[in-house]
Amino acid sequence: MTCPILDFADTLVPALGAHGVDPDRLDGDLATRFAQAHEQVQARRDAGEMGFFQLPLDHATADTVQSLADGFGQWFENLVVLGIGGSGLGAITLREGLLGQSWNERSDEDRSYFPRLYVLDNPDPETARGLLSRLDLRRTLVNVVSKSGTTAETMALYLVIRGMLAEVIDTDNLHGHFIFTTDPERGVLRALAEEEGVPTLAIPPNVGGRFSVLTPVGLFPAAITGVPVRELLDGAAHALRRCESPRLRENPAGMLATLLHLFDTEMGRPIHVLMPYADRLRALTLWFQQLWAESLGKIRGEGHVGPTPLPAVGATDQHAQVQLFMEGPHDKVVVFVASEASDDLPIPSVHPRIPELSYLSGASLGRLLEAERRATREALRRRGRPSLTLEVGPVTPASLGGILMLLEIATVYAGALYGVDPLDQPGVELGKVLTYGLMGREGFEVPQLPDPDPRWRV
Amino acid sequence: MTCPILDFADTLVPALGAHGVDPDRLDGDLATRFAQAHEQVQARRDAGEMGFFQLPLDHATADTVQSLADGFGQWFENLVVLGIGGSGLGAITLREGLLGQSWNERSDEDRSYFPRLYVLDNPDPETARGLLSRLDLRRTLVNVVSKSGTTAETMALYLVIRGMLAEVIDTDNLHGHFIFTTDPERGVLRALAEEEGVPTLAIPPNVGGRFSVLTPVGLFPAAITGVPVRELLDGAAHALRRCESPRLRENPAGMLATLLHLFDTEMGRPIHVLMPYADRLRALTLWFQQLWAESLGKIRGEGHVGPTPLPAVGATDQHAQVQLFMEGPHDKVVVFVASEASDDLPIPSVHPRIPELSYLSGASLGRLLEAERRATREALRRRGRPSLTLEVGPVTPASLGGILMLLEIATVYAGALYGVDPLDQPGVELGKVLTYGLMGREGFEVPQLPDPDPRWRV
Repeated sequence: MTCPILDFADTLVPALGAHGVDPDRLDGDLATRFAQAHEQVQARRDAGEMGFFQLPLDHATADTVQSLADGFGQWFENLVVLGIGGSGLGAITLREGLLGQSWNERSDEDRSYFPRLYVLDNPDPETARGLLSRLDLRRTLVNVVSKSGTTAETMALYLVIRGMLAEVIDTDNLHGHFIFTTDPERGVLRALAEEEGVPTLAIPPNVGGRFSVLTPVGLFPAAITGVPVRELLDGAAHALRRCESPRLRENPAGMLATLLHLFDTEMGRPIHVLMPYADRLRALTLWFQQLWAESLGKIRGEGHVGPTPLPAVGATDQHAQVQLFMEGPHDKVVVFVASEASDDLPIPSVHPRIPELSYLSGASLGRLLEAERRATREALRRRGRPSLTLEVGPVTPASLGGILMLLEIATVYAGALYGVDPLDQPGVELGKVLTYGLMGREGFEVPQLPDPDPRWRV
Repeated sequence: MTCPILDFADTLVPALGAHGVDPDRLDGDLATRFAQAHEQVQARRDAGEMGFFQLPLDHATADTVQSLADGFGQWFENLVVLGIGGSGLGAITLREGLLGQSWNERSDEDRSYFPRLYVLDNPDPETARGLLSRLDLRRTLVNVVSKSGTTAETMALYLVIRGMLAEVIDTDNLHGHFIFTTDPERGVLRALAEEEGVPTLAIPPNVGGRFSVLTPVGLFPAAITGVPVRELLDGAAHALRRCESPRLRENPAGMLATLLHLFDTEMGRPIHVLMPYADRLRALTLWFQQLWAESLGKIRGEGHVGPTPLPAVGATDQHAQVQLFMEGPHDKVVVFVASEASDDLPIPSVHPRIPELSYLSGASLGRLLEAERRATREALRRRGRPSLTLEVGPVTPASLGGILMLLEIATVYAGALYGVDPLDQPGVELGKVLTYGLMGREGFEVPQLPDPDPRWRV
């Protein structure tokens, strides 16, 4: 197991000319810069502030999750996760990556009787009603995920679904339809669980939401749907070992962070595209978007920093975003993700005499996708547009665990390079407080919002 | 019917201070600038180059589509659309917007026996196999959508699915499982259809893929699943009337284009976020992303122009991207979409004595979402971050038709403002040619790609 491998040839002068990085810098100032970032990260890691580094080796939690899932798993047809942001994206990423996009539409047999897995990550009444009116709630387990236990969106959905469950299930049995994933000691969910006997799983206090996919936040939904979570952790552990070196040239997470930071801050490329060529990694791009945006978009001194992550998927986005990537401003770097389909489909020879079609026959969809990825990389290169390629092999629990870990480690390195704290998110507090005010929560002042002004409406 | 309405108060100096636009400019240079853009667009429209303007009034095509759908609709359980880029996104946007996210998981009764609707917009073997192995192909209609009839990804999927159909259906009946949506006269699909007797629908030659949602590209999948396509067109016609004035202050599409262009080119904000607060409009953000990116990301003279559209959804992205929007660089403008849930869900009073929860009880999910949207807008404003709000009312065929039309018109205005042709996409040709070469298509040279260089891999 050597994946993921980062190929960064198309960021360098030999491939890109004036738009590239001088490769000598990789052994010069960039190596020094990264070594310093590594040292800062190591210090915070040693101080116990970056709990996500420990997760791949936490087999005890994985075993707890697995046995809870094995017990519950036999009783429920559906798992509904209530969680927003990092509390939802991890489960979605694992579901799409490892179970495929049509898991919930597959038959019971085809799912080996593992439950369907839904994630309500938005308090949208139409989505919630559409889902909850369709499911047999008596056969549904609800996993409420909120570290603080006070997340408005998640708790509103919890109240709604609890009200619905109470209509079809005896009050005495209600607690058996919930599992709370929350802080090990504090918060409303913890208190409720103790009062009502709801089983719980803990999110380590030193692991923030967007770094929590390998805690029970992601592991429980994965385990209950049959994903071997130990393999996920083993893949992450492997990536961790590959990303621990203070030497830039030996550390793929460090190389990724250092080059993306460099392209933003020195070469006018603040938009970082993550573009896998596989539908099952579409959700990964949204997971990474949160990780990169919320970790790095920060006030620093008198200024504001942070790249903008942009999700894309190949080949689809070649017909949507690639025109902009090719001819628009020189403000982007593309990170391709190259994976291998485990289950390729040959293209049959149907119309052998039509030259516009016959060249496809005898190939396969997987080979076409790979050709498109390589062609797009090359086309970008010829236009002076940098890209990196993360080679991940087939998408398995181990390889996906490795990708997730590599990207998390790259994010904290990038935090050090940008000079910001990648673990906080102070910018979202104001919106929360204003929402509380508008909802009439006690102790929060109702904000005075101006009436719509007809002069500024059309 | 007056929607959509554009509220642009939070782009102006009174709300934003130094980060805002002087409102006097709306009646000064910006009005002049827009009038010129309007004139250019009008000239191309009059010359017949912008066919999408005519679509809302093309009732004849709508009726053709409707009767074809009514005929087919009774025979099939599934419609599978093969189409990439504009050939897929329109159908996805209409399905998600009007049928909701769980259409394909609903029971036959709950769908009133209208077919399920799948869109294969990527030649991903795992997705294709997962879907096609699950469907009863004998009850499946395949709508192949490609204007040229040569789109590699779509035609590869066509060959695969045709091979599979041939295994379960008599050759004589095969043509009855297809409908081709393509150029009215030219191309491989047109020739095949004539040879084999496959029914066809036409994409007008003067309507490009990303402007094609109101052609049979979008209308057929909508009609066959029970969407009243005449209402969709009527809503688009209404928006068209609201967006025809050369006077900036009277034209919401013009105002949107003019302000977004201004923020990009004069105020350092090239990233344009579209952020509806409704799950059913998530797909709209991807449709708009293609429209805005592919139309405006262009070479102009010696330079490169084009904003970067960034999809977001509220409230979910408040826990993912809003930290960056609030504290990151001043490089973004947010366009909120305010809609009303047609089917709200009250939040019951479950834990009345817990203050962290009780404030939610008695409200509804819809009210919470609205409060979050207003709070986020206000929080951005207080940090000097501009936003606009597109108020669309409930999402119906008419209102969605209106949104689509308004955004298409805004796009061609923006093309004129940026000084680029919004109708072409020359930047994607190189990638196509290289793909043909790698796939061994006759007449295309195989590109010499360098071997992976171990020095630039880690």
